[in-house]
Parts: sequence; C-alpha cells; structure tokens
Amino acid sequence: MAKPKPSIPKGTRDFGPEQMVRRNYIFDTIRAVFGRYGYLPIETPAMENLSTLLGKYGEEGDKLLFKILNSGDFIEGVDPELFKPGNANAASLALCEKGLRYDLTVPFARFVVQYQNDIAFPFKRYQIQPVWRADRPQKGRYREFYQCDVDVIGSNSLLNEAELVLIINEVFENLNIRTLLKLNNRKILSGIAEIIGHADKLIDITIAIDKIEKIGIDAVNAELRERGIDDAAIQMLQPIIQLKGTNEQKLQVLKSTLGSSPVGLKGIEEMETLFHFISAWGNLSIQIELDLSLARGLNYYTGAIFEVKALDAEMGSICGGGRYDDLTGIFGLPNVSGVGVSFGADRIYDVMLQLNLFPESLVSTTRVLFANFGNAEVSYCMPIARKIRDAGISVEIYPDSAKVKKQFEYANKRKIKFMVIAGESEMQSQQLSIKNMETGQQVIIGYNEIENYIKSNL
Amino acid sequence: MAKPKPSIPKGTRDFGPEQMVRRNYIFDTIRAVFGRYGYLPIETPAMENLSTLLGKYGEEGDKLLFKILNSGDFIEGVDPELFKPGNANAASLALCEKGLRYDLTVPFARFVVQYQNDIAFPFKRYQIQPVWRADRPQKGRYREFYQCDVDVIGSNSLLNEAELVLIINEVFENLNIRTLLKLNNRKILSGIAEIIGHADKLIDITIAIDKIEKIGIDAVNAELRERGIDDAAIQMLQPIIQLKGTNEQKLQVLKSTLGSSPVGLKGIEEMETLFHFISAWGNLSIQIELDLSLARGLNYYTGAIFEVKALDAEMGSICGGGRYDDLTGIFGLPNVSGVGVSFGADRIYDVMLQLNLFPESLVSTTRVLFANFGNAEVSYCMPIARKIRDAGISVEIYPDSAKVKKQFEYANKRKIKFMVIAGESEMQSQQLSIKNMETGQQVIIGYNEIENYIKSNL
Repeated sequence: MAKPKPSIPKGTRDFGPEQMVRRNYIFDTIRAVFGRYGYLPIETPAMENLSTLLGKYGEEGDKLLFKILNSGDFIEGVDPELFKPGNANAASLALCEKGLRYDLTVPFARFVVQYQNDIAFPFKRYQIQPVWRADRPQKGRYREFYQCDVDVIGSNSLLNEAELVLIINEVFENLNIRTLLKLNNRKILSGIAEIIGHADKLIDITIAIDKIEKIGIDAVNAELRERGIDDAAIQMLQPIIQLKGTNEQKLQVLKSTLGSSPVGLKGIEEMETLFHFISAWGNLSIQIELDLSLARGLNYYTGAIFEVKALDAEMGSICGGGRYDDLTGIFGLPNVSGVGVSFGADRIYDVMLQLNLFPESLVSTTRVLFANFGNAEVSYCMPIARKIRDAGISVEIYPDSAKVKKQFEYANKRKIKFMVIAGESEMQSQQLSIKNMETGQQVIIGYNEIENYIKSNL
Repeated sequence: MAKPKPSIPKGTRDFGPEQMVRRNYIFDTIRAVFGRYGYLPIETPAMENLSTLLGKYGEEGDKLLFKILNSGDFIEGVDPELFKPGNANAASLALCEKGLRYDLTVPFARFVVQYQNDIAFPFKRYQIQPVWRADRPQKGRYREFYQCDVDVIGSNSLLNEAELVLIINEVFENLNIRTLLKLNNRKILSGIAEIIGHADKLIDITIAIDKIEKIGIDAVNAELRERGIDDAAIQMLQPIIQLKGTNEQKLQVLKSTLGSSPVGLKGIEEMETLFHFISAWGNLSIQIELDLSLARGLNYYTGAIFEVKALDAEMGSICGGGRYDDLTGIFGLPNVSGVGVSFGADRIYDVMLQLNLFPESLVSTTRVLFANFGNAEVSYCMPIARKIRDAGISVEIYPDSAKVKKQFEYANKRKIKFMVIAGESEMQSQQLSIKNMETGQQVIIGYNEIENYIKSNL
C-alpha cells in the first residue's frame, strides 16, 4: 500500500537551505546591530504556563493560543459535563496547563518579573524566536513565525527612543532597504482628544487624518461629522488634519493648537527632545516623518509610537513598536516603563526578495567541490582540501566515485563555483585541474598553488 | 491581592544573556564547521502532524509526545465514550492532530521525502532546533532542549563517515574540548553474533566486553555463562573480549576471529577504509578508538556507530550517531542510506562550564559605557559613540542622567570594561575621561583620540 505523501500542518513552513541562508543573513544582521548597542540576548521556552498567557491578548487572542494537552491520564478528575459540545473553552482549560507563546512581549514581562533581583536595570534585551498563533492561515500570515524584539525596560529617558531609531536606521541600512520611519506620540493624540472634548473618537480622528491626501479636506470633514464629531471640534481639528511641512513645522503648528492641553504639550516636548537626540548623532539614511495618523497599538503605547515602511516595495509595516508604561504590572511589578520595537522577519524577507537585495554570495555555502574518481584520487586530494577548508572556505569532496556527468550535475545544482579534478595524469604531475563552473574556464595548476588560486578567484 | 510569582513549566528553561552568549558560541562554532564541510541548514516547523510522529519512537516515545489541542470546538463530533478515564490515549488522538517534534531525525526524513524532487542528492544538511519530550524532568534532562544534527543522505560512501569524524574533530578542537571518539560497526557486531550462533545475545556480549577492565576475564566469562551463552561460544569470544592494542591490531584479531562471517568481514573492511580515509587527512587532535562495547542505537544503525566523550570531565556522551540504511522508508521512499551525528549542546555547555573553557570575551557584549550627566553632555558624546560603534565595538550611553554611583554600579554589574565620562571641564577642553573598570586606571584624552585608545586597549 502506498504511504500518504507526508506534509506539514497548514500555516507552518519548512525552510530549505536557500531560504535558511537568507533568513540567517537577516537575523545575523539584526543581531549584530542589537549587540553593538549593548542589547543582550535572552530566550524563553516555547511553552508557557497558560496562566501566564491567558487574558493578555484580549478574548480573541485567548482563542488563538495553541494549547498543549496535559500528559498522562488527562481525563481523570475532569468534570464530564465539560465534554459537551460548546464547552470547548472551559474544557480546554481543564485539559491543558501549558500553551505555546503567542508573542515575545508577555514572556519578556514574565522574565523581567521572575528575575528582577538578578537583572541590571535598565535592562536592554533582544529576543529572536518563533511564536505561534492559531490564526486562519492566509497569504503572508503564518501559524508559526519569528519575531525579533528589542526592548529596554526600567528607564524613562527619551535617549532610549533615540537609540531605537538609530538601531532601525542601521538595520535597514545594513540590509540595504530604503525605509521611511513614521513617528507619533500617544500623548499628542491624547492632547488632541482633550482639546476637542472627544477622548472616545481618537481612532475616528486618526482615520480621518490618514485620508486627507486621498479624499481632500471637505470629504474628511464630512466623514468626521458622520462619525459624530461636532462642528466646533471639527473646526479646532483643521490645522491638525491639514498638518504639512517638515517635522519642525508640524510641531510648531501642534504647539499652538494644543497650547491648552498639558498632556499634548508634554507629547510635543518629548518629540522635540527625540528629534534633538537623533540629529545630534549626525546624518541617518532613514527618512523620518511625524505622522499623526499612526495609531498602532493605541491601547498599549503611552509615549512614542514607531512604524517603518519600505520605500520601494508594496508591503505593510516591516518594523514597529513604542513606549509602554506598565508592561510588568500584569505580573505584579508595577510602574516599570519600557520602550521597544519588533522587526518583522518574514516581511523583510519578502521585501528583500522582491527588490533583489540579498547578496549573491548567499546562494550557496559550498565554493569548491573535489571530484571523486576513486579512493587513491580522493586520498591525493584530501590534504589540499583540508588546507582550503582550514582557510575558512567551504569545501566538499563528492562522496561516491560516480560518473563524471553526475558529479558535474551536482556541482551545478548546488551552484558550486569551482570543481577540482584529479585523475591519474594530475597525480603523476603533482597537479590539479580546476574548472570555474560559472565561466567554463578550466586550468591545470600545481598542487600547492590551488589554495591561492581559489582565494584570488572566489 | 498579590499576584502569584510568575514561573515556567517544569523541565523548561529561560536563558539569560550570559547563558545565551555562551550557547550561541557553541552553536556558532558548530554551524561554522558544518558550513565549511558543505552541509546546508534547514529548519522544520515546531509542530508536525501527529501522523508524521506517531509510531516512530516506539510505544514509550508516543507517550512522550507533546500534543496540541485542536482549535475551535474540538469536542464536536468526538465520541463521548472516549472521555472516560483510562481512554487518554484514544481520546488524545481524537482531540489533537498536531504534536511538537520529538527529535530532528523524523522531521528530516519527512522533509527529504516531501521535497525529494527538488533536493540535490547526496543531500548534506544540518539542523539546529529545539525538540520537546514529556519526559520526567531530572538533573540534566529537560522537556525542551536543542539538538544539533548533521546528516548526509543518498550516498553509501564511507567518505561520509570519514568527513563526520573530521567534523567531530574540528568542532571539539575549536571548542577546546579534549575528546575521545569511540567507533564501532554494526556489521562487526552481527559477525560476532553469527560466528557464535547467538544473534539474540548481542547486548549481553557488548555488556560483557565493556566490563573486562573492571572485573577481569574470569568474571566476564562467568557472567556470559549466566546470561545463557554456551561454553563453545564463550571460547570463541575470548579474543574478542580480550581485544587490546591499537585499532589496527584490534582489526587484525577480528579478521582472524570473524574469518567465517561475510558480514563480519564486511564490517572490518568498512572500518579499515574509514581509518584509511581519516589518516589520509593528516593529524587530528581527537583520539579515536575502536570499541566493540559501543552498542548505541543498535536497532537503528546498520554500519558505523559513533560516540564522543570528553576526556577531562565526568559526563555521558556529548555527541553520537551512525549509519542507517532506511531512514525515509517510513514515509514511502525506501533504500536511501544515510549517516549522521547529533551534538548534545546542553552537555557540551556543562562540560565547557565545568572546565572553564568559554573565552573570557564572552562575559559581556558591551565594552564601552558613556556616562550621562545631562542632554548637553550626551549630545557632546554622541558623535564619538557612534564612531566607536561603527568600528564594530559594542557601546552604550547610560540613558538617564542618574547619580554617578548608580551609573558605575551598572557598568560593574554588566562587566563593561571602559566607562567614558564627559562633564563640563571635558567639554570645554574637547577631551574625554576614560576609566578602565578592571584596573581602575583613569586617563583624560583628546576627543578624537578615544577611538584608537579603546581599540588598542580592549
């Protein structure tokens, strides 16, 4: 009987060598930047106690947690009433104590509280690990995906925000992605809500601001009216909706508009300090834009809000984050402020693929393949293969003395640049033939010259 | 009400920065060696379909799989009879379609079969990922731990075994761990069983061989008799039990003892070829010993068997593996031979900690901390901090203008080597004070000289 073709669960992925080499390039680049800024790596277990995870992502989030069935006789002691259709939620809690992590933020908060006595604050950490969500799989949305989070916790200084901007700048500069960083501040948004007396309409206002370029001021005002905002408030909003110019000009307008809101002025001051710090660093390659329509994570962030878009590709945000004032309160350690951003590795990967930004050298790790014409020939090649390998160059010896054609096919399929051939005549003359598989050029050179030849022709 | 102290599931671990830096050092070292030998990275999802995992690890193994509760109304349609105590096994299959991977071997076999048309064979792959087992947690045994597997599949050549020996040699040489590699061959063991007519007693024989040094030949023979091996067979076993000398001498003795066993002679020939290949590479730092008591994975391996022990630490094997002839048959692709080894990252970590083998430079990634005395001082430092960072050196600016004592404490706790101090006087004279936190030495130097000073004193 034929076995069924093996497959993997929907929404998950295998990564083959080519993808892995590219993904590692992204992770390594990000990791190196984090490291240079003094951020330290941590890792947390894939499984957390459900008590750690539940209630942290809203009701919808709870449903998206992957739960781990208890081991042993997990039915023993569970109320049989629970096993009736419709009781799935309650039953799952009786059957499962653990779940897969849903993001890296809650495990980080748990980590900080658990080890608070050992940690040197301000604690600068990064974490690059997969997370799991029982989301409906669709294009670009997976049930297992990596997050790359960088956060500093235990410091209110806006220098942290500034350094995150530098990190964002450096990561995308190193990856060669031209980007736009959108900045906003929750306190400015609160100030706007304060002066127009519509704290409940913050989302409506940001949506309207976002549409100004597309539909024009009259349509925006009509929409605001429809959304229940009164004429006096709409009047006050005009300079904000039509905000234009440089970041400095925008802040000037906001300063006069929000003059009567202490929280709004505080937000403007924070933004000015942040811009001051950024400019003190010198030129950055990233474009930075104050964008009041940026409302990402509004229930969560308390100060700066960040979002990064690639300039040359159609793609949602590839990085985002902000300042939060009470991350660890949920685990009993209140009043610890933090700020952080998360890089979206999958989207960055897609952007880089689309724009052909991966370095060509990533295609294959093996550079030199020694052909195999038998044990004597292989033994002849071994010392020099070892020498080239010791020089840090990736080398293979074809393991079987198969037909030459097959060995060449393997070299081509693996995109190996050099094929070294040693038959009887080469052995007698203490030489080696070397073929450049890209150009087709083949030369015969002395046994001890091959290392230098490869090094200077790689 | 006080919140409960947060914790993680038993048998799992958090890794703090210090551990992470060390673990990454091990993984990076292993990865670099794998890469130089042309092995390519793959990754598979944490979750596999249970149909992929079940039945691959024996009945005990099935029980140790972590199963993922189905999403949505998972009770709907399940036979209520299943929800009675004692039915845990059947019920788990009705409630769960997915499980966490138990090792990297079965996912690798699944991967090879699934993508067989895209893979260039021989396929040399490595995989470094966590696995999960619902084992009873105990010292050194975890429910989540990393495996580092390297395998080549689709080639019978003993050159593959030889290259794995070189990989093992190079990994432990680079990690600075003195090791002994024990080698055996399943075919030699089969030959022994063949000549004495006791195929069922292979384990008893290997146990006896293992005891010869401790209890002496008479006690070994008595034990063999007790285990039901007849006198004629014990007589034939004498040269094998008392096998001594160099690997070549051992093979000579085996050759005459197993002369009448074709499979035994084949095993000896394989071992000779392997030793020939290894010696053709030149000197290795690892010790290599033919050890007939090595019976690791006897039901599984068909040729070479490998096991590595650290010479200077009390620890079980830190690496092991062997040749298998039908890994992918379980998924419908028969007769594909492979060979591979797995490095035990946790045990390697413990050995290195015990022997103090981690390089000192791993202690902390941040080398330079700029003190913070206010925004003007920080802005003064920023361009030079950026320059040092751009040179690849890890730099932090203390984010808050806190008390000097607090900033120094942070530098000490983080083991940061240099603290750079810029107050009003330094700003006026275009200088910086720099303190070596290890020696206590403090010097004042010109603003533009600091980069070179740090580089030459790191």
